[in-house]
Amino acid sequence: MHVTHDDPGALRHACRSGAFTLPTAGHAGGHIQANLMIVPQADAFDFLLFCQRNPKPCPLIEVLAQGSREVQCAPGSDIATDVPGYRVYRHGELVEERADVAALWQPDFVTFLIGCSFSFEAAVAEAGIPLRHVVQRRNVAMYRTNVACAPAGRFSGEMVVSMRPIKSRDVARAVEISGRFPQAHGTPVHVGNPRAIGIADLMKPDYGDAVEIRDDEVPVFWACGVTPQWVSQRSRLPLCITHAPGKMFVTDLKG
Amino acid sequence: MHVTHDDPGALRHACRSGAFTLPTAGHAGGHIQANLMIVPQADAFDFLLFCQRNPKPCPLIEVLAQGSREVQCAPGSDIATDVPGYRVYRHGELVEERADVAALWQPDFVTFLIGCSFSFEAAVAEAGIPLRHVVQRRNVAMYRTNVACAPAGRFSGEMVVSMRPIKSRDVARAVEISGRFPQAHGTPVHVGNPRAIGIADLMKPDYGDAVEIRDDEVPVFWACGVTPQWVSQRSRLPLCITHAPGKMFVTDLKG
Repeated sequence: MHVTHDDPGALRHACRSGAFTLPTAGHAGGHIQANLMIVPQADAFDFLLFCQRNPKPCPLIEVLAQGSREVQCAPGSDIATDVPGYRVYRHGELVEERADVAALWQPDFVTFLIGCSFSFEAAVAEAGIPLRHVVQRRNVAMYRTNVACAPAGRFSGEMVVSMRPIKSRDVARAVEISGRFPQAHGTPVHVGNPRAIGIADLMKPDYGDAVEIRDDEVPVFWACGVTPQWVSQRSRLPLCITHAPGKMFVTDLKG
Repeated sequence: MHVTHDDPGALRHACRSGAFTLPTAGHAGGHIQANLMIVPQADAFDFLLFCQRNPKPCPLIEVLAQGSREVQCAPGSDIATDVPGYRVYRHGELVEERADVAALWQPDFVTFLIGCSFSFEAAVAEAGIPLRHVVQRRNVAMYRTNVACAPAGRFSGEMVVSMRPIKSRDVARAVEISGRFPQAHGTPVHVGNPRAIGIADLMKPDYGDAVEIRDDEVPVFWACGVTPQWVSQRSRLPLCITHAPGKMFVTDLKG
């Protein structure tokens, strides 16, 4: 049975009880979903600065106070339990995927919520520009690029982008519409010409699923919220916790 | 003799040598000027978070690495000497105004450059909307409000706003134009009705100079870069260094 949770609070509670463990796309429609990054206080300034210097891949929705687990834009939430799945990285290696991180919680943890593309995708689709991965119910295709992010302290690495094929006549409108959502990565970072940013083969994404690109379409690249995970791996961060792919934190904010 | 420095690097060198000690408005035209805030690393995460949570009063232009004195958007600069005047606050009290802070420099200092209103003022004036304080060569009128900023760690306090009288027919256009400059405080935070934000008498600003408001004009309020100074005082921060009023850091960025 496929149940859609329209109420973000109910969805978070279902995550907490273990009843909901799926990717969150299509759930709690109209509410802003967020990428998750939790780091110890010792790395929090550097990571906050990294986000400030790289607002396109890392648009901040909210940063919690040290040790706090309740997200302000989701009253009653518990960030250690209310995501459908978590990943734990140590020294840049994925060591564990878990249903909650309550047992790992440290009083010095600082939680960062980073915008995701769902908000602008909904607006683009509503404007009559179909998005293939949504139509085909796949994950969006994502690629590591050779574009260096602005480093900050111990954080450095290349930007990850998501790609959507857009008809030539619709590219300008897709730019315009996504630009209204700076907290959902905003305007594209690159249009056409994948090799120029180090992508050798669009059919072989580093994350997510490949989609066909038709003759009248251009590959359009947006900065992607997977960037901070990739950069944390590259930077061999001693410890960080993220959401599992596609399993986002759902806020009460309307997008 | 009144010398205008058009080149931002030359202006910074004149500050460094002590040859230039004036307010920077009208100098290095077209280059972005910035409010300065320097805090020790122990308070840097909280202050960065305060800026992230209050982007209208505190739009970040650049945050320097710990201990660094060279601003990236002003190559060759020295933040400890290249501002025409500095203020030193200890435990919320102004203790000193100095020509440079090289002798006070600590390796744990973190420098924040915060946008100022000059960029949007130039664009508004160019659109044919005159700004009285510019025409009359006064400081803009600034007021402490009763509007609480979003607190962050030890930083909390009320927003400071600047006020410009705008003709009723020009208000919408002034909103539109200033909105193009999010790094210069963006759109107004309040239009008309000063009492609603705790301003009892527009003729008695807390900082800067009062200007007349004519019958066909509305007082329009923008978030002001003095906010972080006021909040640091209110928060009794052990130590911070700011620019002296009107004596901004001039970057190489074009605004």
